[in-house]
Amino acid sequence: MEAEQTYAEFISRVKDIYRFRGMRSHLGWDQQTMMPEAGAGARASMLAWLAGQAHNRVVDAEFGELLSNLWQRLDSLSEDQRCNVREMKRERDKAILLPEEHVIKVAEMTSSSLEVWKKARVSNDFSIFSSTLEELVELARQRISFLQKPGQTPYDVLLDDYEHGMGVADYDPLFEGLRERLVPLLEKIMASKKDLEDIVIPDSAVFDVESQRELGLRISEHFGFDFSAGRLDDAAHPFCSGLWTGDTRITTRYDVKDPFSCIGAVMHETGHGLYEQGLPSEHAFTPRGGAISLGVHESQSRLWENQVGRSKAFWEMAGDWFRDAFPEGPEFSDEELYRLVNKAEPSFIRVEADEITYNLHIMLRYEVEKALFNDNLPVSKIPEMWNDLFEQWFGIEVPDDSQGCLQDIHWSMLAFGYFPTYTLGNLYAAQLTEKVCEELDMGIDSIVESGRTTEMLDWLRREVHIQGMLLSPSELIESATGKPPSPEPFLDYVERKYGSIHGF
Amino acid sequence: MEAEQTYAEFISRVKDIYRFRGMRSHLGWDQQTMMPEAGAGARASMLAWLAGQAHNRVVDAEFGELLSNLWQRLDSLSEDQRCNVREMKRERDKAILLPEEHVIKVAEMTSSSLEVWKKARVSNDFSIFSSTLEELVELARQRISFLQKPGQTPYDVLLDDYEHGMGVADYDPLFEGLRERLVPLLEKIMASKKDLEDIVIPDSAVFDVESQRELGLRISEHFGFDFSAGRLDDAAHPFCSGLWTGDTRITTRYDVKDPFSCIGAVMHETGHGLYEQGLPSEHAFTPRGGAISLGVHESQSRLWENQVGRSKAFWEMAGDWFRDAFPEGPEFSDEELYRLVNKAEPSFIRVEADEITYNLHIMLRYEVEKALFNDNLPVSKIPEMWNDLFEQWFGIEVPDDSQGCLQDIHWSMLAFGYFPTYTLGNLYAAQLTEKVCEELDMGIDSIVESGRTTEMLDWLRREVHIQGMLLSPSELIESATGKPPSPEPFLDYVERKYGSIHGF
Repeated sequence: MEAEQTYAEFISRVKDIYRFRGMRSHLGWDQQTMMPEAGAGARASMLAWLAGQAHNRVVDAEFGELLSNLWQRLDSLSEDQRCNVREMKRERDKAILLPEEHVIKVAEMTSSSLEVWKKARVSNDFSIFSSTLEELVELARQRISFLQKPGQTPYDVLLDDYEHGMGVADYDPLFEGLRERLVPLLEKIMASKKDLEDIVIPDSAVFDVESQRELGLRISEHFGFDFSAGRLDDAAHPFCSGLWTGDTRITTRYDVKDPFSCIGAVMHETGHGLYEQGLPSEHAFTPRGGAISLGVHESQSRLWENQVGRSKAFWEMAGDWFRDAFPEGPEFSDEELYRLVNKAEPSFIRVEADEITYNLHIMLRYEVEKALFNDNLPVSKIPEMWNDLFEQWFGIEVPDDSQGCLQDIHWSMLAFGYFPTYTLGNLYAAQLTEKVCEELDMGIDSIVESGRTTEMLDWLRREVHIQGMLLSPSELIESATGKPPSPEPFLDYVERKYGSIHGF
Repeated sequence: MEAEQTYAEFISRVKDIYRFRGMRSHLGWDQQTMMPEAGAGARASMLAWLAGQAHNRVVDAEFGELLSNLWQRLDSLSEDQRCNVREMKRERDKAILLPEEHVIKVAEMTSSSLEVWKKARVSNDFSIFSSTLEELVELARQRISFLQKPGQTPYDVLLDDYEHGMGVADYDPLFEGLRERLVPLLEKIMASKKDLEDIVIPDSAVFDVESQRELGLRISEHFGFDFSAGRLDDAAHPFCSGLWTGDTRITTRYDVKDPFSCIGAVMHETGHGLYEQGLPSEHAFTPRGGAISLGVHESQSRLWENQVGRSKAFWEMAGDWFRDAFPEGPEFSDEELYRLVNKAEPSFIRVEADEITYNLHIMLRYEVEKALFNDNLPVSKIPEMWNDLFEQWFGIEVPDDSQGCLQDIHWSMLAFGYFPTYTLGNLYAAQLTEKVCEELDMGIDSIVESGRTTEMLDWLRREVHIQGMLLSPSELIESATGKPPSPEPFLDYVERKYGSIHGF
């Protein structure tokens, strides 16, 4: 076959694979936002079927032949085409090493384990989840046994699944360096707190859902989210789905006692949504048109949630929006709103954590997972290790497992190795912001104040979004910022910001 | 291959075909209820892709071999299995007669023609739509040329597409007989109107959307719709989608000046939804578990909308619900509400028509379509024929084509031959109701008044819903009522009802 014809046949199959995945995302979005409860059984089986259809097409022998053929003449392909061949090859190389019975077992397991985890968390009883968790860890170990390459530690295999190219040799020193500056920073903040008046939401305050939603839409639009090509819906666990070209959907949740839960979620998911809306639609249904990694995705959500949404300038503008949305009060000043969204203190729940302790939550999970897979920590010892480390780093004692090792959904979905990408996102976000500030020659507060976030978005579109999967995550960060990924911009950012709030 | 193994392979392929269709329905529902406008392009291409995937699997040669093999040993199969083989064979026998280029042309045409029709209707300009309509008619004629069997008139081919087994030889005398009694009935109603006080909704009245929705939910639940296995959403053109087992979705629309538009739509779609919720879930993704025909589907919607929802007893109960929903008035009595939902008079728009004129609207479309396909009526002559027939049967002059031959979406979707199934639904609904009344030994008003509609639903579940596609539409009606389909019960019903309202 001619190269051109081979590539055409290859890419047509790739698009079919992505169509099945698109359908799966769509039904996943629907499951979490629209589906009536009695639809759960049929939905689980459809999601499994769609996953199977995609998987079969990836491991298909003829598809493999097309791939090897193209792999041998990479030089004759365009840059975009090479990207598609490279990424599909990487995916297939992993997929064919997994026996079908393992794939089926994984699908069965993850659809049932979620319910067990939910029950354990609600009952606050680790023993309900522990035997399921043992099976999940065993499945992850099997995956490792099929995929481990020379030079990789077992946990590296899982880490690589979620951020290609990253392993313990990268994360260990990175996290060590972060901890060295974050733990003392947190101590300084806590020490200085006694001098600051504590801003709190009065117990009597009620923030109605419709007003929260209107405010969320206003913020999301201000950030640049295009609602003619997207939606905002409700979900118990907020997420973003870049379903189709021209159709990106974000979700949030509402707590009538605390509007910042919704506001934070909208900002965060808007960041993800802007990335999805900025992906090159001419490459839809191919790797070239997709997001490069979870870490880079998280950098986009964190940048809008934290660097922009938790800036002083943002609340000097949005303070009025907030007070307009809730005319019955409580009437917070701009400064008070800024302080409210930037409270840092040790707390038990990751998703509610501030910008500093958030990363300590991640590192704790990283250490536990590393111990599980590299040091064979028994599952029964997880609560103990979790609680010990927590007390050591946060200085407070975990009261129960629901506020400890049972709090996250990830393990029940077999997503071991996923957590570190959240911290990567925080670091990339700060590094990208630093570079944008350099380019526009002003601080982030000035950018936000002068309404030049549109220029910032243009820059992100150009340097990050339209790149799709063309570059690896670290190549992308280096190409955008001129420097390899580094924790320095993030550490500088939080030290500066919290120093200014707490006067040190 | 052993019979059992052949059947297993066959049914596994059938389920895949139905899964693609399920996805298509799901994306179709989403398109009309959730999709942001910029998603239209990608959505059209996904819908076409899913249709293509299903079509390819139907015409697939190996699937054909499995089917012929099973067809030759039908006697060795169970009743359920025979149903699946028979229905898939009928479908495949048609599909393989259609050349691929015709199928592609149809897909392309119907995704673009909808927009042209919309524009023509809004602009009230038939000339905008006429060349597109000519192409659509030409495509339908091509379809006829591929499928026509000896003894069929051209239009029969299209009629059979929507209600298997029905052709002009069936519809002509049926419609003739209906017209003979409906036209004089309408004249009697109009003549008696001068003696009746006219009940109208005051121009100043406003019925808020949220209250309409609450009232709609209340009615739908009262009819038996299970909202743990379904939803109610908004759509410009109300419809029902029985998407998945345990997941049936109905839609309605809201007019703040006229709550009966929403109430009628909810009742109608609830009837469709009850049928979907009553289909045998153990046969999901196969013909045995599907609705037998459009006519039977419409019988379920009409029965709940008309026989129940427009009954005197219903409004004697729901009058309070209505007044509770709209405490600011206007305060209609039960009797006034009953009269409001049972106004009969000539009007231009089919979907707003009463129970009597509705069928005249259908017959008019039937005559126009029959002239198009059996007598080669030129497309340019449609407005003239439409308007002439309208004046003859309704006694009023069509003011413009938007209120005439441009009002319906069907032709733009190539659905020639679809309309008559609406009237079949009306007839089946009346015949089924007559039988239920016999079984419960009381009139429909007594059933509604005594809350025994749950028993009526049980009877429909047993006699209609769980039958799936086991019997043909007419066999099903005969099996349920003991008599072949007949217009008598319907004519008796409307003559009795309108006679009692208008005192003749």
